Amino acid sequence: MNQDLQKERAAASFNPELLTHVLDGSPENTRRRREIENLILKDPDFQHEDLNFLSRSQRYEVAVRKSATMVEKMRKFNIADPAEIMWFKKLHLVNFVEPVGLNYSMFIPTLLNQGTTAQQEKWLLSSKGLEIIGTYAQTEMGHGTHLRGLETTATYDPETQEFILNSPTVTSIKWWPGGLGKTSNHAIVLAQLITQGKCYGLHAFIVPIRELGTHKPLPGITVGDIGPKFGYDEMDNGYLKMDNYRIPRENMLMKHAQVKPDGTYVKPLSNKLTYGTMVFIRSFLVGESARCLSKACTIAIRYSAVRHQSEIKPGEPEPQILDYQTQQYKLFPLLATAYAFQFVGAYMKETYHRINEDISQGDLSELPELHALTAGLKAFTSWTTNTGIEACRMACGGHGYSHCSGLPNIYVNFTPTCTFEGENTVMMLQTARFLMKSYDQVHSGKLVCGMVSYLNDLPSQHIQPQQVAVWPTVVDINSPDSLTEAYKLRAARLVEIAAKNLQTEVIHRKSKEVAWNLTSVDLVQASEAHCHYVAVKLFSEKLLQIQEKSIQAVLRNLCLLYCLYGISRNAGDFLQGNIMTESQITQVNERVKELLTVIRPDAVALVDAFDFQDVTLGSVLGRYDGNVYENLFEWAKKSPLNNTEVHESYYKHLKSLQSKL
Amino acid sequence: MNQDLQKERAAASFNPELLTHVLDGSPENTRRRREIENLILKDPDFQHEDLNFLSRSQRYEVAVRKSATMVEKMRKFNIADPAEIMWFKKLHLVNFVEPVGLNYSMFIPTLLNQGTTAQQEKWLLSSKGLEIIGTYAQTEMGHGTHLRGLETTATYDPETQEFILNSPTVTSIKWWPGGLGKTSNHAIVLAQLITQGKCYGLHAFIVPIRELGTHKPLPGITVGDIGPKFGYDEMDNGYLKMDNYRIPRENMLMKHAQVKPDGTYVKPLSNKLTYGTMVFIRSFLVGESARCLSKACTIAIRYSAVRHQSEIKPGEPEPQILDYQTQQYKLFPLLATAYAFQFVGAYMKETYHRINEDISQGDLSELPELHALTAGLKAFTSWTTNTGIEACRMACGGHGYSHCSGLPNIYVNFTPTCTFEGENTVMMLQTARFLMKSYDQVHSGKLVCGMVSYLNDLPSQHIQPQQVAVWPTVVDINSPDSLTEAYKLRAARLVEIAAKNLQTEVIHRKSKEVAWNLTSVDLVQASEAHCHYVAVKLFSEKLLQIQEKSIQAVLRNLCLLYCLYGISRNAGDFLQGNIMTESQITQVNERVKELLTVIRPDAVALVDAFDFQDVTLGSVLGRYDGNVYENLFEWAKKSPLNNTEVHESYYKHLKSLQSKL
Repeated sequence: MNQDLQKERAAASFNPELLTHVLDGSPENTRRRREIENLILKDPDFQHEDLNFLSRSQRYEVAVRKSATMVEKMRKFNIADPAEIMWFKKLHLVNFVEPVGLNYSMFIPTLLNQGTTAQQEKWLLSSKGLEIIGTYAQTEMGHGTHLRGLETTATYDPETQEFILNSPTVTSIKWWPGGLGKTSNHAIVLAQLITQGKCYGLHAFIVPIRELGTHKPLPGITVGDIGPKFGYDEMDNGYLKMDNYRIPRENMLMKHAQVKPDGTYVKPLSNKLTYGTMVFIRSFLVGESARCLSKACTIAIRYSAVRHQSEIKPGEPEPQILDYQTQQYKLFPLLATAYAFQFVGAYMKETYHRINEDISQGDLSELPELHALTAGLKAFTSWTTNTGIEACRMACGGHGYSHCSGLPNIYVNFTPTCTFEGENTVMMLQTARFLMKSYDQVHSGKLVCGMVSYLNDLPSQHIQPQQVAVWPTVVDINSPDSLTEAYKLRAARLVEIAAKNLQTEVIHRKSKEVAWNLTSVDLVQASEAHCHYVAVKLFSEKLLQIQEKSIQAVLRNLCLLYCLYGISRNAGDFLQGNIMTESQITQVNERVKELLTVIRPDAVALVDAFDFQDVTLGSVLGRYDGNVYENLFEWAKKSPLNNTEVHESYYKHLKSLQSKL
Repeated sequence: MNQDLQKERAAASFNPELLTHVLDGSPENTRRRREIENLILKDPDFQHEDLNFLSRSQRYEVAVRKSATMVEKMRKFNIADPAEIMWFKKLHLVNFVEPVGLNYSMFIPTLLNQGTTAQQEKWLLSSKGLEIIGTYAQTEMGHGTHLRGLETTATYDPETQEFILNSPTVTSIKWWPGGLGKTSNHAIVLAQLITQGKCYGLHAFIVPIRELGTHKPLPGITVGDIGPKFGYDEMDNGYLKMDNYRIPRENMLMKHAQVKPDGTYVKPLSNKLTYGTMVFIRSFLVGESARCLSKACTIAIRYSAVRHQSEIKPGEPEPQILDYQTQQYKLFPLLATAYAFQFVGAYMKETYHRINEDISQGDLSELPELHALTAGLKAFTSWTTNTGIEACRMACGGHGYSHCSGLPNIYVNFTPTCTFEGENTVMMLQTARFLMKSYDQVHSGKLVCGMVSYLNDLPSQHIQPQQVAVWPTVVDINSPDSLTEAYKLRAARLVEIAAKNLQTEVIHRKSKEVAWNLTSVDLVQASEAHCHYVAVKLFSEKLLQIQEKSIQAVLRNLCLLYCLYGISRNAGDFLQGNIMTESQITQVNERVKELLTVIRPDAVALVDAFDFQDVTLGSVLGRYDGNVYENLFEWAKKSPLNNTEVHESYYKHLKSLQSKL
C-alpha cells in the first residue's frame, strides 16, 4: 500500500469499518454488499477494459456485451433485491450505463404498472428474457419537462381496430430515450390519444420498432442514435419518428384508461398514482448524488494525501497538498456534504418505502409532501454534487484533467442528473408551489405538518426584525441543533419573502401566472433554503442515533462543518434576517478554519469508510495500492496514440507538412 | 433565418454592428478581422469535419493535417500580427488546439529570448520551416507549480563537453507538454543544471528527441502520449524520460547564464525578465476567458430565444424559454460578465503593451503590480468563466448535454485554463502577497499607486464600523461609479481582515510561513474581492468612453446588472462591512429582477455583437440559419453509431445476449 495513505490510516481517530456499517445501515448489509462485490471481482468474465482507451462505437459494443453477462450472472447468483442489483451494477459497470438498462428499469415496470394481466402475459416473459428489448420513449426533440406539449399522436381507427402513430413535426420526433438508437426492438411510446375525434391526452403504447430476427427498423419507423454527448458514451440514446405506423388496439396499456373496440374512451379512476414512479426515481437520485460526490471526494482526498507539492516552510520537504488550508477548504466541506447527502439519501429511501406502504393501504395524505420533498432534494443534491465533482477534479490539478483521475467520467455521467427526471429549476419551483400552499394554509389558520411544520411557528409578525432581535444570542455555533434552528429561520424568512413578493406581483399584474414567473427567482431561493434546512436537520438528527463515541465525534465535526460552511457562504441570508450578528459570522468563519484542522487527520479514513472498490472508482489517482505515479505511467503507455501501427500514418502527415514549408 | 431570432433582432434598441466596433477596438479592426475570417470561410481547403464524430486518433490526425494547411496559408496570406494570427486560428480550428502550436508559441519564442545569436542561427530557420518541430518541456509528473521542485538533471561532463540529461525518478518524467507525445522531434527541456559538483537551478536545454527522417525516438529517450483527457483530444500531450542522454554543451540556451567548456558557471545579470512571458500568457488568458464566456452566452441565449417550452399562462402557446425569469437570471448576469471580461481583457492587453514598452526602456517599476494583477485576474476570470460555461450548457436543458450544442467542447477545452500557466489558487495567493505588501507599505506610512491605491485612503481606523456608519446612505444603486466605490470598500475591508488575521497568526505561530498557510482562505477571498473591484471599475470607466447613446444605454444596464448581481450573491460581504444596509440589499435584489426585464429585448442583439461565425461556435443550437430542430436532426444522422456497417456487429452481440437467457 502507498506509504502516505498507510500513515494517514494509522493516524485516524476512529475505525472506518464502523462508519461503513453506519452508511450501509448495518454490519450485515456491509457483509452482504461485499459478498456480492466479491462475486464480481473474482469472476474472470468481469474483467474490465479501460473504457477511456476505446472509441464510442467500441464502448457501446463492450457495454452491450457486458449487459448480457450481467443479466446472466444476476440470475445465476440469485440477485433480485433492488439494492443488491444496484451494488452489483455499480461494481460491474464503472459508471452504471447500460444499453439494455431501460428494459429493466422502465419498460418492464411500466408494463407491470399500466398493463392489463393479458398484456403482461403477452410481453413480460419475452422482455425478461430479452427477446423483446424495450425502452421508454417520452421526451421529444422539442418537448421535455412540459408533458402536455408532447406532439406524438396515436389516432384510433375503429375500422381496423388499430392505433395510427404519427410524428407530425420535426419537434415531435422522440429524442433521448436510452437504448433506442441501436439496442431496442420495442418501445413504450407516450402519445396524445385521439379517438372519436377527441384528444384525451397522453397514454402509453407498446410499439414494435425493429423486426425480431433481423433487428431492422420496421416500415414506417425511422430510428437511430442521436449522436455523441458529453458523457454516456456507452448509451445509444436514440430518436424515433413514426409515419402512419399502425399497431393493434391491444398495444395500448389499458390497466387504467381504455379504448373500447368501437373507439369509446374509458377514463382511469385516479391520476395520482402515476406520481409513484417519478417519486421513486427522484428519491433514488438523491442517493445517487451522495454516492457520486462520495466517489469524487475519495479520489481527491486520497490523491491530496499522496501528492507532495511546493513548500509551506522553505527548505523542508514538499508537504502533502492536503496540508494546505486552501486545499482543505476546497475538499472538507464537500466531504461533509457527501456525508450529509448519504443520510438524506437513506432518509428518502426509508420515507419512500413508508409512504408507499401507506399508499398501498389507500392513504395518500403524505404524497404531496413527499412529491415536493423529492423534487427539491433531487435538485438541491444534484446541483451541489455537480459543482462538487468539478471542484474535486480541479483540486487534483493537472492530473484531475486526465482521464486517469476518473473524475471527468464521473462528472459527465453525473451531470445529466440535473436535467433528467425533471429539470432542476422546474423541480425547485414544484417544491416552491408546495411551500407557498403551506404558507397560505398557515396564514388561513390551519396547521401544516412534516418538514414544513416550522411555518406553523412563524406567522408573519414573528419574523420581523424587531421581534427577533433577541434570537441571535441564542445561536450556539457549536451545537448542530442550534444551527438547525438557524437554518429553519432562514428558510422561514425566505419562504415569507417569496410569498409576500408573490402577493405584491399578483396585485400589480393581471394574472397569477405572470406574477409567479416574476417571483420565480425568489421562489427558487426559498426552496433551496428549505432543502438546505432539511439536509442540516437530517444530519443533526442522525448524530443522535450513533452510539459509538469515536464515530459520533467525527460525524459531529463533519456536521458542524456542513452547517457552518453553509452559513459562511450564505452570510447575507443569516445577517439579513437578524438570525445572526456580524460578530457571530466572524466567529463562524474562524470556526470553519479550525474545523479544517480538526478534520485533517481523519480525512483519509473518512473517505475509506465509503468503502469504494478501486474498480468502482475507475481512477488511477484514487487507487489504494502501489505508487500512484508508477500506476499513472503504466496507464498512459496504453494510450491508443502510443500504438506503433498508427505512428506511420501520423508521420506521413508530418512529412507532408514539412515539405510544404 | 430563424423566425424567432429575426423578431428578436428587429426588436433591439441598438445596432449591434456599432457594439462590435467597440469590442474590436475600431471599425477598421472589425473590417480587417472579417476580411481574414472570409479568407478562411471561402477557402475549400478549410472545410471542417465535425470533430465530434471522430475518434481521438482521428482527431489528432485531422489536427496535424490542419496545422500544416494553416501554417502554409498564414504565410500565403501574409498574416503575421499576433492578433491576426489569433483570429485566423480561432476560425480555422474551432477550439484552437493544434499539435504543432507549441513550436510557434513556446519553442521559437524561448529560442529568441534565451538563445545566443549563434543558437538562433542554428535552429531558428529549420524550426520556422517545421523541419525541427519543437515543444517546451517543463512540468513533470510529480511537479507542476513549484518549479524549484523539478527533478530532471543536466549534469555537465567537461571531458566530452556534453550535458548528461537524466530523469532520475518516476516523478521526474516530463508530463503534459503539448505536441510532445507524437508530433515533436525537439524539446526545450527545463532541468536542474549541475556543473563542477554544484546545482545551479533550472536552465533550458535544446534536446533532440526523435530522429529526423524516421521520426523514431532516439536512444536514451522514452517518449509518448500521456493518454486521454477531459478535452484537448487533438493534442498529443506527452511524456519524456531521459536516461543518461547526452547533448552537446552548445545545446544549453546561453543568452543569459552560461557554462564554459571547462564547466565554469556564469550567472545571468537579472532574473526579473523571465516574468515577461508568463505575464503575457496570463494577460492573454483573461481575453480568452472573455471570448469563451461570450461564445457560451451566444449559444445559450440564441437557443433560449428559439426554444419554446411549458407555459406561463395556461392555454397560450409555449413561450420562448428566454421569457422565464429563472432563465434570465441564469443567463443575463453571465452576459454582463462576458462584457465585463471583454473590457478587462482589452485593458490587460493595453497595459501589457504599455508596461512592456517601459520595460524595454529599462523601467521595471510597474512590473510587480502587473504581475500581481495578471495572476489574480487570470484566476478570477477563468474561474467565473468555467462555472459560467457550464451554467450556459445546463440552461440549454437536455440539448446542452449533446455535443450538438457545442458547449461540452467549449467547456472541456477551456477548463484547463484554471490549472495551467499557474494554478488559480496559487495565482490568487500571489496577488494576495502583493496586496499584503501594499497594505504593510501603507501602514508604514508610504503611499501605494495603481489599482491598490484605495489602500491609501484606508488606514485601519477608517474602516471601523463606527466610522463608516454614514457610508451606506451614499451608495446609489443606479450609479456604476457609486457601486464601484462599494466594491472598493469591500475589497479594502477583506484585505484588512486578511492582513489582521495574518498578523494574529504570526504572533501565535513560530513561523511566518505557517501563519500564511493558516490565513490562506482569507487571503484568497481578499484577492477575489480585489479582482472583482478591478472588473467593476474597468467596466464603469468603459461607459465613459462610449459616445453613441444607444450603445451607452445598453452597456450601462449590463454594467449595473454585473455590479448588482455581484452584491446580491455576496450580500454578506457588503452587510458585514456596513457598506450597505439590509434595506439596500433588498432594493438591490429587486433591481436585479427589474434589469432582467430591461435587458430581455436586447439579449439576442447583445450576443450578436460578439460577432462569432457559426463555424467558430461549433454549435448546432447557436447557428443563425434555418430551423434549429431540422439542423439537429441532420446532425444526429451523421452519428457513427448510425453507420449501417457496424449495425451487424452490434446485432451479433444482441443475439448472443438473447440466446443466453
